[in-house]
Amino acid sequence: MDWDLLWLDINVATLDPARTAAYGAIEDAAVAIKDGKIAWVGPRSELPEFDPFSLPIQRGDGNWLTPGLIDCHTHLLFGGSRANEFEQRLHGASYQQIAEAGGGILSTVQATRKADEEQLFQHGRIRLNALLREGVTTVEIKSGYGLELATEQRMLEVARHLGRLHPLEIHTTYLGAHALPAEFKDDANGYIDSVINSQLPLLADAGLMDAVDVFCETIGFDLAQTERIFQAAQRHNLPVKLHAEQLSNLGGSQLAARYRALSVDHIECLDEAGVAALADAGTVAVLLPGAFYFLRETRKPPIELLRQYGIPMAVASDYNPGSSPLCSTLLMLNMSCTLFNLTPEEALAGVTRHAARALGQQHRLGQITVGMDADLVQWAIRHPAELAWQYGTAPAVEVMKAGKFITHR
Amino acid sequence: MDWDLLWLDINVATLDPARTAAYGAIEDAAVAIKDGKIAWVGPRSELPEFDPFSLPIQRGDGNWLTPGLIDCHTHLLFGGSRANEFEQRLHGASYQQIAEAGGGILSTVQATRKADEEQLFQHGRIRLNALLREGVTTVEIKSGYGLELATEQRMLEVARHLGRLHPLEIHTTYLGAHALPAEFKDDANGYIDSVINSQLPLLADAGLMDAVDVFCETIGFDLAQTERIFQAAQRHNLPVKLHAEQLSNLGGSQLAARYRALSVDHIECLDEAGVAALADAGTVAVLLPGAFYFLRETRKPPIELLRQYGIPMAVASDYNPGSSPLCSTLLMLNMSCTLFNLTPEEALAGVTRHAARALGQQHRLGQITVGMDADLVQWAIRHPAELAWQYGTAPAVEVMKAGKFITHR
Ligand SMILES: [Zn+2]
Ligand SMILES: [Zn+2]
Repeated sequence: MDWDLLWLDINVATLDPARTAAYGAIEDAAVAIKDGKIAWVGPRSELPEFDPFSLPIQRGDGNWLTPGLIDCHTHLLFGGSRANEFEQRLHGASYQQIAEAGGGILSTVQATRKADEEQLFQHGRIRLNALLREGVTTVEIKSGYGLELATEQRMLEVARHLGRLHPLEIHTTYLGAHALPAEFKDDANGYIDSVINSQLPLLADAGLMDAVDVFCETIGFDLAQTERIFQAAQRHNLPVKLHAEQLSNLGGSQLAARYRALSVDHIECLDEAGVAALADAGTVAVLLPGAFYFLRETRKPPIELLRQYGIPMAVASDYNPGSSPLCSTLLMLNMSCTLFNLTPEEALAGVTRHAARALGQQHRLGQITVGMDADLVQWAIRHPAELAWQYGTAPAVEVMKAGKFITHR
Repeated sequence: MDWDLLWLDINVATLDPARTAAYGAIEDAAVAIKDGKIAWVGPRSELPEFDPFSLPIQRGDGNWLTPGLIDCHTHLLFGGSRANEFEQRLHGASYQQIAEAGGGILSTVQATRKADEEQLFQHGRIRLNALLREGVTTVEIKSGYGLELATEQRMLEVARHLGRLHPLEIHTTYLGAHALPAEFKDDANGYIDSVINSQLPLLADAGLMDAVDVFCETIGFDLAQTERIFQAAQRHNLPVKLHAEQLSNLGGSQLAARYRALSVDHIECLDEAGVAALADAGTVAVLLPGAFYFLRETRKPPIELLRQYGIPMAVASDYNPGSSPLCSTLLMLNMSCTLFNLTPEEALAGVTRHAARALGQQHRLGQITVGMDADLVQWAIRHPAELAWQYGTAPAVEVMKAGKFITHR
């Protein structure tokens, strides 16, 4: 029993699908950690004998342990604020008027281009701290507010710096095709050329991106443009993801499935053909209830179809200044149940096991099973369903990343 | 200039209606505090000369100061959890099935009756701490999960203890007529008798309540029963409030107005006659977007009518285990804008100036004006609209109650 730490007096929601209990739960469990990994997990009664003087014991006070939460879809780095636009809209301004007054995503692009590395880094740190207080241990961060080489590079570099300097694990996604920059107005294909020929290869060669994403939508990029970017990603051996079927059904999910995408995200308008394509490809459906809430959408993702086809459903914050200014992964647990009728267990799997898969990290994150990274959160709750039911009392009492305590309260 | 403290390098959202700027804002302001009260507030340029060695100066780093937030409607003390019921519902159980399985409000009543003073106090403290971290300095707490003398008394006593032992200011409201206890099944008038003849007079004489509330609804108590309780409150010189017009329009608001109620709360189904009655009585309309969200309601309060009649609109969390398990006043700022189309300024006035009026404290709380209590929050924001627009990064950097720092992070 050459372990580094042993958790006792704890119930564990392992999220291990091999366990038949809801949440993969083990009541009165023990969890041993060695070299940052889970070395043993099971009922306390089955724990091998050990010398209590030989290793530190962490007592969980009868609380619950879950895998560290994973927010697999954020636009967490941005300059400026969109509070002004929010206020104008509530004073009755139309989207047209706001766009004419310089609002919308291009105002965030402008502000992000102006923001220096220090500003982006410091704001990023504050936002990651907020997520860490909630029990989040892994966060995906997308670029996409530069829409030009220098700023896209700065965003990804800041994300990489945060990954090195902050206790949270950061995965970066290049989203150069997030919107059409003003310089390429009426020339979307010209902008895609610059993405494929300049931004993507340079930033990929610099090792700045873990995946490539595109905003595929009537108001974004079309299927042909999306496919050109997927092909470029393929040339660099980078996995792809897709913002798809949020406002319309373009068939982006089928395209994404053909490229074995890690995930398709939003998917309010996804149809059965799209769901079937995801099933064949093993692609994760990422649900973003924060944007659904903030935009007052009414069309929900096809949850029942996703269940029928056994598609893994992740849940993420989509944290961004325009359509989901909600920097809270835990709130998304409640919103995915309240707005999309997920069960609390599905919601929790959505920010652990399935979110890990949406980042291609299902072999090491998102479950409490032997060999996985020891990313653990101790919650002051009596039942795992409380995490989705109640919001606001911040019950994460201890947070551990790869076997180290990183609690941040 | 015999002041205790001077705030400089700060912008102030005074919420003072006498100032014409939005939010009653003063940029580059100064705020002086003496004996727990605001002694001076105005532009820095108009500040009288003072000796900088004569008093402590608190620099605000160009941030914003608002009045301490006030949550004027909570059911913050309760035993047990309703996570189980939430989970059952999402697994498809009907309300009927949940009630038959012992769920619903009466399950909270059972759990609260079983909870001792220590449990209620410790849970209450955790919840108040969560609100304090968000910049809340005053909270109303209702009884109503006892529905019998001993437990109603215990709830109000715990609330009073919290008021003495926690830095937040607590106002208590007696809500004995929250639901019909099992002991009085089919005998609502009999229960009202026990409220009027036993609970209310005893608890009022013990000084445990600052106001009296009733749940007036088709599934609650009717107008005649409500009026009997209002009359009993009047005999004890206690102001009244009312849960009214949430699911139906019984005319509770007109009744409340006749009794000069401090507030009517929920009011999704309020009509113009009701709004006119509130206007005459000076009664506050308390909006509860958390319950609207959590119950997936679709009928919104008549915001436009309330504006036309100049009714003060407060915003509160309604924090409770059954219909709004969201322990966050700040989230309600966003929800009141997103779900009810309040402007960010209306939302902020709703948790400051108008919430103070809903507690009868408009003479001392809810504004930053000379003579008011120095309840102040310093926010790391560039514009007051950010408080309603963004959620989750917890930007309250300093919190002050009656001139004392009570920051709790
Ligand atoms: Zn997104
Ligand atoms: Zn209520």
